[in-house]
Amino acid sequence: MSVGMVGAGQLARMTHSAAIDLAIDLVVLARSEDDPAVRAGARCLIGEPDDPQALARLAAEVDVVTFDHELVPNDMAVALTEAGHQVRPGARALHAAQDKLVGRNAFARAGLPVPDFAGIDRDPAAEVVRFGDERGWPVVIKSRSGGYDGRGVAIAAGPDEVSTAIASLPSSLLLAECYVPWVQEVAVVGARSPSGDWVVYPPVATSQVDGICHELVMPAALAPPVAGRVQELARTIAEALDATGVIAVEFFVTAADAVVVNEIALRPHNSGHATIEAAATSQFHNHLRAVLDWPLGDTTLRAPVAATVNVLGAADGSDPARLLPQALTVTGTSIHLYGKAAAPGRKLGHVTSLGSDPEETLARARRATALLTGQPTPP
Amino acid sequence: MSVGMVGAGQLARMTHSAAIDLAIDLVVLARSEDDPAVRAGARCLIGEPDDPQALARLAAEVDVVTFDHELVPNDMAVALTEAGHQVRPGARALHAAQDKLVGRNAFARAGLPVPDFAGIDRDPAAEVVRFGDERGWPVVIKSRSGGYDGRGVAIAAGPDEVSTAIASLPSSLLLAECYVPWVQEVAVVGARSPSGDWVVYPPVATSQVDGICHELVMPAALAPPVAGRVQELARTIAEALDATGVIAVEFFVTAADAVVVNEIALRPHNSGHATIEAAATSQFHNHLRAVLDWPLGDTTLRAPVAATVNVLGAADGSDPARLLPQALTVTGTSIHLYGKAAAPGRKLGHVTSLGSDPEETLARARRATALLTGQPTPP
Repeated sequence: MSVGMVGAGQLARMTHSAAIDLAIDLVVLARSEDDPAVRAGARCLIGEPDDPQALARLAAEVDVVTFDHELVPNDMAVALTEAGHQVRPGARALHAAQDKLVGRNAFARAGLPVPDFAGIDRDPAAEVVRFGDERGWPVVIKSRSGGYDGRGVAIAAGPDEVSTAIASLPSSLLLAECYVPWVQEVAVVGARSPSGDWVVYPPVATSQVDGICHELVMPAALAPPVAGRVQELARTIAEALDATGVIAVEFFVTAADAVVVNEIALRPHNSGHATIEAAATSQFHNHLRAVLDWPLGDTTLRAPVAATVNVLGAADGSDPARLLPQALTVTGTSIHLYGKAAAPGRKLGHVTSLGSDPEETLARARRATALLTGQPTPP
Repeated sequence: MSVGMVGAGQLARMTHSAAIDLAIDLVVLARSEDDPAVRAGARCLIGEPDDPQALARLAAEVDVVTFDHELVPNDMAVALTEAGHQVRPGARALHAAQDKLVGRNAFARAGLPVPDFAGIDRDPAAEVVRFGDERGWPVVIKSRSGGYDGRGVAIAAGPDEVSTAIASLPSSLLLAECYVPWVQEVAVVGARSPSGDWVVYPPVATSQVDGICHELVMPAALAPPVAGRVQELARTIAEALDATGVIAVEFFVTAADAVVVNEIALRPHNSGHATIEAAATSQFHNHLRAVLDWPLGDTTLRAPVAATVNVLGAADGSDPARLLPQALTVTGTSIHLYGKAAAPGRKLGHVTSLGSDPEETLARARRATALLTGQPTPP
């Protein structure tokens, strides 16, 4: 069987590794031969994700088309399906991940807990101010599409911050939301097949730095009913959208243990990287199995706790590949580099460690990450 | 850093997966673009492993040359070294794995326990009969080189079986050995770097069917002093040969818990496949780290027991890739297919399972393997 993946970043790179295990023929649609998945040896077509001809060429070569990002225009996903190709996740599900307003509306219709929100239309500043005055401040203003790694989100504490916040956003199509006073951010990664099979990994505690996902601990320290609730909500969302493949749902947890749906992604996700080492089946294997409608794999953890720390490019442009021998002195860590050119703040890799104590396990991954980026090593 | 690997079979394929994690540029010398490592996307040069020009082209492209088999003529490995290339393992160590008589002599000189043996020279049948009459029957007759997966080994129970046994062997350069009355075969996989760092995995119990390694359980059920002894012997051999990279040593264990060195390989080995899932660092990662003289990785097991069953091509030519969806119903197994065309008896993949009870763990891997090869599933 062959799978076509639109995009050739690190998610496609790690999907390629899983495809090797199962002798699945993976073809990626890459922008460049320097893309991480192509450098890992994935067979590629070169083309843009919003070029209908490139998408058609990819779809013609494979049994199933899937995605490592959300940048395919939704009408092109619809067109692929109408041309008779298997597109997983399907265009409708994809839409909820591509356009945050579409997603929010779908979740609200399904009765899911979302922040109070409103689409922003012709007169953004005035509409956001009115939203804040009516529903309360601060207001979170988001680009409806194209945001990732902290781009596309701004917070206005009051009316006088609205214009600056809007000006910082890359897109003019916006969404306003009430700020959720969360005490913990968690993510749930699951996988759903066209036959309706569902598997889910334990919730992950995520921490962001400047909006970029930075550290993850699996399982998150949640009261068991909360852990069960977020896992069930992830399933409900997957079913409501008829999503196929991996789905990642990010939640806010409040001091009162209320949970609110934040973002979703319909693809393997940074929150699930630890599953490579920590779970019986990785999210990348389960994504391939799901989009091929094969039986899904066991999500049981092999260790009490797993921690992942992202390797973000250092300010001085240090190349983690050159610092690898030092970082490999930290025993009990698994280093993944994505084969990207180093640049400040760029996600260049990640480090996963397994252990029994969350603090010690996270500290080990942090030490290796610090060595990879030429930073002082934490204790 | 870049590593050149002579050979592009399944060992090179799995080494490529490890190279992806560490963003190491792996280049394989492949006979064909259909070779397993090339199908997995490893960058390749096409050439024969006994073509000095092909070897020189590979060496010119990379920082270090290593091997996925023993088929490079030793003088060519010497020539690469003399031309200034880093060859790991070095030619002298490689010789002991390439020519069983060279190996036996080296081990005997180092005071290691080996079966009583003799090189066979001009008059094979007469010399083997004399060897058996003097040292005892049965006699094991081996091709000094080129044997693998049971080829190159024959047993003569008495003088009248010698001619037939010799006729069955592929090479005319032979070695005779006393048969060791073993009760268990075990293998030890370790890795040694040029700096002298050494790591070793727990011993593995191996079982062969028709001379082909078929099932492996790690750790082998050995008395602790025996386990420690075979691990120490593996280290002694690696140091005596000044070997670098992964070394696998196969041992016979007798009823009295005596251990005798059988074969060695200076490369990742079938006995170590379970380390992909079962160990903190796989043998493929450690091979790369060792040949690059980087710090070696933790060999601790992540589960009490790991079992591996090889997927050997069924007599009817069933293709495991087509039977994968059925086999994936067996939870708690990790399937690896090598991307080879199915042929009876051919090693097409392997299945590893982790667990706590050796019998149950092995049974799970056997069930998935049976489903992959269209055989009746064992209980």
